[in-house]
Amino acid sequence: MTSERDPKLAHLIDWLRDAHAMEAQAETMLKGMAGRIEHYPELKARIEEHILETQGQAQAVARCLERHGEDASTLKDTGGRLMASLQGMSGMMASDEVLKGALFSHAFENLEVASYRSLQAAAHAVGDEATATVCGEILKQEEAMAQWLYDYIPTLTGQFLARATGTGEAKR
Amino acid sequence: MTSERDPKLAHLIDWLRDAHAMEAQAETMLKGMAGRIEHYPELKARIEEHILETQGQAQAVARCLERHGEDASTLKDTGGRLMASLQGMSGMMASDEVLKGALFSHAFENLEVASYRSLQAAAHAVGDEATATVCGEILKQEEAMAQWLYDYIPTLTGQFLARATGTGEAKR
Repeated sequence: MTSERDPKLAHLIDWLRDAHAMEAQAETMLKGMAGRIEHYPELKARIEEHILETQGQAQAVARCLERHGEDASTLKDTGGRLMASLQGMSGMMASDEVLKGALFSHAFENLEVASYRSLQAAAHAVGDEATATVCGEILKQEEAMAQWLYDYIPTLTGQFLARATGTGEAKR
Repeated sequence: MTSERDPKLAHLIDWLRDAHAMEAQAETMLKGMAGRIEHYPELKARIEEHILETQGQAQAVARCLERHGEDASTLKDTGGRLMASLQGMSGMMASDEVLKGALFSHAFENLEVASYRSLQAAAHAVGDEATATVCGEILKQEEAMAQWLYDYIPTLTGQFLARATGTGEAKR
């Protein structure tokens, strides 16, 4: 069907699929990270809150696809490359070291921020105002999470170093 | 030598090495991206400006290491994992699609932002105020680049879609 479509709409649909794959990856990565954190309850609680938001975002993006008669399950060729890259990032987030995980989570949230800003503009460009509104709402949640991590990173660094004894016991 | 050191200082040195590796990767990635861009002169010019900043940042980080009697060339075990992840991100930045490149560049700049915020806090924690000052200066440059990309992404999306004809000629 895509070849018969307006090329702009075809791009919007591809990018919504990328966003859906990104949220699925985010959920896996955030759950893994929350499950490993032992000594940083503030970080764990904020991540658990964002897991619920992430699940809602994936559903909201799927509904945008459904309004165009598409489902979120089709993997595009570009999806494989995107996923490989996201998995590389989430590999870092799976590190023993909670601090590296927080740095990469901040990067990942900002990948999501940029993606939804782009999607919002693309939705406006094709006149899909319902999708533009959804992207604007998700954008606010991603920006709030990114800002929280930005604010928290110096505190986390201090906590990590205060526990640093060379035995690695505070890495999680 | 590291085993005889204050564990906090050992962490600071490891993280400075990670930052140096990150800047080297950033330079490679930004040069590749600038070299491929054909239709987006505003983006190309801003990236070329940031390449010069990135080279200066790598040198500034190397001088911080030298003040501790260390050089920037030693690859730590964690470096390999960090680099694999950064290369995954820069693989996306090497995509044909300029828009994906910009999204991942925004994520990469924010990885750098978070890293220098953490390094700045770590430098304060060990009383290395010279390094803290350097990290604060680099942080401002990374934040400016991240903000520029954030502001530009909706414009870039519109330009990309305006050229979208299905033949792929505006992807760069």
